[in-house]
This record gives sequence, structure tokens and C-alpha cells, in this order.
Amino acid sequence: MTSPIFTPAFRADFENLLRWRRDVRHFLTDPVAPALIDNLLRQAMLAPSVGFSQPWRWVLVDDPARRAAITENFEQANAEALANYHDTQAESYARLKLAGVREAPVHIAVFADTAAPTGSGLGRQTMPGTLIWSAVMAIHTLWLAAAAEGLGLGWVSILDPAKAHATLEAPADWTFLAYLCLGWPAVPSPDPLLEREGWERRLPPEPLILRR
Amino acid sequence: MTSPIFTPAFRADFENLLRWRRDVRHFLTDPVAPALIDNLLRQAMLAPSVGFSQPWRWVLVDDPARRAAITENFEQANAEALANYHDTQAESYARLKLAGVREAPVHIAVFADTAAPTGSGLGRQTMPGTLIWSAVMAIHTLWLAAAAEGLGLGWVSILDPAKAHATLEAPADWTFLAYLCLGWPAVPSPDPLLEREGWERRLPPEPLILRR
Repeated sequence: MTSPIFTPAFRADFENLLRWRRDVRHFLTDPVAPALIDNLLRQAMLAPSVGFSQPWRWVLVDDPARRAAITENFEQANAEALANYHDTQAESYARLKLAGVREAPVHIAVFADTAAPTGSGLGRQTMPGTLIWSAVMAIHTLWLAAAAEGLGLGWVSILDPAKAHATLEAPADWTFLAYLCLGWPAVPSPDPLLEREGWERRLPPEPLILRR
Repeated sequence: MTSPIFTPAFRADFENLLRWRRDVRHFLTDPVAPALIDNLLRQAMLAPSVGFSQPWRWVLVDDPARRAAITENFEQANAEALANYHDTQAESYARLKLAGVREAPVHIAVFADTAAPTGSGLGRQTMPGTLIWSAVMAIHTLWLAAAAEGLGLGWVSILDPAKAHATLEAPADWTFLAYLCLGWPAVPSPDPLLEREGWERRLPPEPLILRR
């Protein structure tokens, strides 16, 4: 098999994909076809993994009671986070409406199976974090594949992970990594929401690169 | 600005990119133009980051003495890792020739700046790991952007991270995440090296997906 030649046009579109892959918080309520979700997960599992361990695990959350428990978990954690900010920063933070959990039609929790025998521990004796990082790269792959379909994804990290784990009755050996909201975005934009809202600006690249 | 429409042809090429993005260990010694490296790093920094914290930090390693120290670090960690495997698994492991550190023309160490004020801690009070995971997603972005140029990347995780940190004289607040080898691949292939070598097989997707 010969390796494919990616064209300059593809690379331009790929960079466009990176730019339009946003953390989406505002969704239309239109459903997403189950076959499309399956297709995205299939692509996500093409991500790299240490020792080819493939530790990613996905939980599709449809049960309204579990969704309500996750929403409550978020609201409590969000209120506690808000208490740590002051003045205009707190106001700005509140305005961000950080969770799409109420609007997004698809909810996907992501875990890493830290007990899976796959990969036989290869490559992670000195750096054990690489197992979880492999699942994180699968989340990122899902994110990009979704953006290529015009779908938005929002990563909710303002959650008590132990509580979310219990709500979802996931196996004990799994580590909770992320709660993802997926759906058709209400307001597509190439700029990070946090940049639009004045929370943070994009850093110039040069100071982030050292030479040794 | 209206959002771009990604075509089915682009999506097919993108999936092809995911399939051909391999962990490469065998490189040609041909150089990679510095402008191309800059372009890849610029794209990598379009990755998502918690609170738009942009914690990724890159160290381009050119100094032969530092490269030699990293190689020695790898060889020592690799020998220790090998001692933990037995019989045919160990032989197979030895045959993998896990590092491209001797051949790859470009060496990039990646860190996360855990003390950076950017993002003001947003989104990581309940899940502090998300800061490092943001830099991991930038590594993955670099990997894909490199693959789109026909470049191969290999992630060396069999290293003592503290020793690598010292070798590279990186700031103390930075966390060492990865040592990347980049170059033109000697043997392009869409199958993981570890699968070709019989180390591990790709898992079927369904058992990795739960419904709740």
C-alpha cells in the first residue's frame, strides 16, 4: 500500500478545521443521527495510544434522570468555582454560561480504563500518565471529526468527577475524564468564546518556543 | 463570518489522515525546513485548552550533547523496561527499536507551564489534570499537521522525565510531557507498528461503548 499524498488544498482545509473546532456551549436542539455518532466514535478510536493500549471508553448518556444529576453536579461545581472569582471577572465568568448540558442533544462521558491489559504496559513505566493522555487524544479526535461534520462539541470539566462516575455507574477501574456535549452549534464562530468574552487572548507563538 | 462547509471529500481525506498518522520510529535523515517546523508549531497551538490557558511549551533540541544525553536516558529506561518483560514478549519488544532518537532530524520536547496565569484557572478547579491534557491535545494537533505534510512523528515516553527536564534546562514550573522525533518516515504504513509486530491488536469498537 502506498501512502496517500495530502494536497495543499487539503492542508488549507485542515487548518480551517483546526480554527473552527471550537468549544461550543450553545446548541440547537435538533437531534444527531445515531449512525453519525457511531461514525464519530469509530474515527475517535483511530487516535494514537501508548503501547497501542486503546484505553478510551465511552458512555452515551440518554437517561433523563442521569442527565439531570450531571446538570446538578455542574451547577454545584460552577457555583463553587464562581465563589473563587471576584468583581468583573466573576461577572464575565457568569455570563459565559459554561455548560451546554441543558441544550445539547447528545451527551458523551469519556473514561480511561486504567486496568485494561491491552498494550501490556509498554511505554508507560516511566510516564504512567500517557495512558490517560491517550484517551484525551481520542477526545480531541472526536472533536475534530465532529467539526468536520459541522457539529459542535463542548467539554464540561466543571464537575465533581467522583460524583459523575457514580451517576453513570461506570466500572470502578475506569477513570472519569470528560463530559462532552455534542450537537449542532447555534452560533458558529472561529474565535474562542473565552476570547470573544474578553476572558483571555491568544498568545504570540515565539515566547512559547525555546531552543536548546 | 460564515462557517466553512467541509465536504464529504474532505472528510474522507481527514479519516485517511487519522489512519496514516502513525507513531513513526524509522526516519530518513533528510532535513526538515525550519519554516515548515514553525508552521507545524503554529498549527499545534490552535489546539483547545482549558480556560484558553494555552499551556503548551516547546523546546527544539539541536545541541548534540543534549541529544546524546536524551538518547542515553532513553537507553537506560528502555533497558529497565525490558527487564520487566519475559520470553518472546521481551524479544518482540527489543525488536521494536522503539526510539527514532538516533535517526530523526528534528527533536522537540513538549512541556506544560503549570504556573502560567493564562486562563485564570477557569475550568480546572474540579479537574486540574485538564491543564496538562490541553498540551497533550496540542501534541496530537502537531502530529496530525505533520502527517498532512507527509512527515512522521514518534513520541518517546520511555524516558526518566526529571532527567530529561534537567538535560533541557527547562524552567522549573514546566512539566515535561513528551519527547518527539520528527522527520520523513522511512517506511510509511497505515498500520500501527505495534500491530504489525504482533504486540497488540485493534479492539472492536462496540465493547468500548456503554449506554446509560
